[in-house]
Amino acid sequence: MKIVFHGANALTFFDGFAALLEHPHELIAVSDTLDREGELALYQAADVVVGTYSRADHPPSSARLFQLPAAGYDGVDFASLPQGCAVCNCFGHENAIAEYVMAALLSRHVPLAEADSQIRRGDWHYWAGGPSGLRSELGAQSIGIVGHGHIGRTIAARARAFGMAVHVANRSAVNVPDYAATYGLERLAEMASRVDILINTLPLTDSTAGLIGAQVLGALGPRAIVMNVGRGPVIDEEALYAALSRRTIGGAIIDTWYVYPTPDRPSPMPGHRPFHELENVTLTPHMSGWTHGTIARRQATIARNIRNLEAGEPLENTVRA
Amino acid sequence: MKIVFHGANALTFFDGFAALLEHPHELIAVSDTLDREGELALYQAADVVVGTYSRADHPPSSARLFQLPAAGYDGVDFASLPQGCAVCNCFGHENAIAEYVMAALLSRHVPLAEADSQIRRGDWHYWAGGPSGLRSELGAQSIGIVGHGHIGRTIAARARAFGMAVHVANRSAVNVPDYAATYGLERLAEMASRVDILINTLPLTDSTAGLIGAQVLGALGPRAIVMNVGRGPVIDEEALYAALSRRTIGGAIIDTWYVYPTPDRPSPMPGHRPFHELENVTLTPHMSGWTHGTIARRQATIARNIRNLEAGEPLENTVRA
Repeated sequence: MKIVFHGANALTFFDGFAALLEHPHELIAVSDTLDREGELALYQAADVVVGTYSRADHPPSSARLFQLPAAGYDGVDFASLPQGCAVCNCFGHENAIAEYVMAALLSRHVPLAEADSQIRRGDWHYWAGGPSGLRSELGAQSIGIVGHGHIGRTIAARARAFGMAVHVANRSAVNVPDYAATYGLERLAEMASRVDILINTLPLTDSTAGLIGAQVLGALGPRAIVMNVGRGPVIDEEALYAALSRRTIGGAIIDTWYVYPTPDRPSPMPGHRPFHELENVTLTPHMSGWTHGTIARRQATIARNIRNLEAGEPLENTVRA
Repeated sequence: MKIVFHGANALTFFDGFAALLEHPHELIAVSDTLDREGELALYQAADVVVGTYSRADHPPSSARLFQLPAAGYDGVDFASLPQGCAVCNCFGHENAIAEYVMAALLSRHVPLAEADSQIRRGDWHYWAGGPSGLRSELGAQSIGIVGHGHIGRTIAARARAFGMAVHVANRSAVNVPDYAATYGLERLAEMASRVDILINTLPLTDSTAGLIGAQVLGALGPRAIVMNVGRGPVIDEEALYAALSRRTIGGAIIDTWYVYPTPDRPSPMPGHRPFHELENVTLTPHMSGWTHGTIARRQATIARNIRNLEAGEPLENTVRA
């Protein structure tokens, strides 16, 4: 089969991919713009496209599988894909995201860099035994996780291992005896009033946009922390900026944003409001899931789907059959 | 009963302690030096001494319980204590130490501070999708834990929650099916040859001093990390400095040391060798277990032992009956 990796994002899954396949296939990398000689023809002749978005102007008219190397499929123009072309996505980022979350939360409790810098000058401020050097424990805190999919469940497991009280809000009912409490999404403000940390893991849909707004943020206490590793606009931008700049909440750790780089504007600030001027926010550039492990797990999923397609067996993670 | 808290370390357990007792007792705080008027008499009349070390020159001659608010009892002069005076210690620091360990390990994989500083300048280097911003995962690594007491077991549970392969070396046999492998202490070098991270949790005794020496450190790979949250000299100082300065190992995270502050020398560098000049070490001032949670858990243990003593019931954590 002709397997075409389309664009810079897909290209990160190209190296080492051939070794994962049972049989040799034609593996081809083409650019995002498809404007080098022959690229468009290669894209249109592909049996399988690996890419994060489809080109509605030049549909891959031979494709039997459009395989996203990512979870989100808002870049796919389903109508332009040929009939019978399945669309599948990939997960495998949940471990990486959970490491980002726990690293960010633990760093608020364990002042490693400060302690290292002090002791190199002979300052033993944090030495056990002195009352001034006492720190807090993450394990004594409660976390409210919005969404109980791959990401939410993986964060919950790590948080439980540290002894944290885990609250979960989800669209469908969740029944895990280990959790402190579970809520429907209509009870988000109630959950927010009970937790030290509120974290969004939900994707952006019509029903999640602005789900965490002024009412939910207003229910948080003045020391509470908001995190976002789902999609930016699930947390209302104006309400988040207001809560942070007026310090009605303790702070935020935000990985997913309201403004992203484009070819025309490659280095934007990540919000329409000046989040980058606030001291009570940790800002990161939508990086939480981006690890070598995520690449390897997604490559394995893609390779399995190519084998499944070849063998006429059911595909994994089918978004459209 | 007269309960005397002796010295600055013990004093950190004084606030709020009265509320934990079933019956009122006389709670008295005295200084390390016992040189203020009346302090020595109060110390000598104590039914219970809460302190990290005993004064052999002025033994607490009435004491029925010498209660350490810490795990280590190398500061107690057992011979000078009155007959029938029990000595008990405290744990409760293992959760705090495990948070320190996981925070330090995760910080090597998730570049939060760097990413935050970059995006505030419009630099999206770590943005998912670009090959240059990919990071590694802690969960893909293996850890070799030396010692399977309170601390070792608590670290192991956190490491397993992240998917790490856990190897354990211990004096007595360990049988936990969840571990990748277990070893006797005579096979430390073998364990070292198989792990990405080697961490000491052992206290200092005649048989642990220098246990991790040139042979064990030499078995580690060039990217391996050494950690110490037990006692400094369990890792041979010369061998550790040589491995770090010659870069035969990848780095170290060291919390427990070879040199500590004394009244005469309150701001020493923590080693006889210039560890503070090395860039491949994170140095912290013996802080890993020092949290409000540790204080609260130890206060609860001490309060239970006072109740047990009063009721003539068996004491907890008896070092000497």
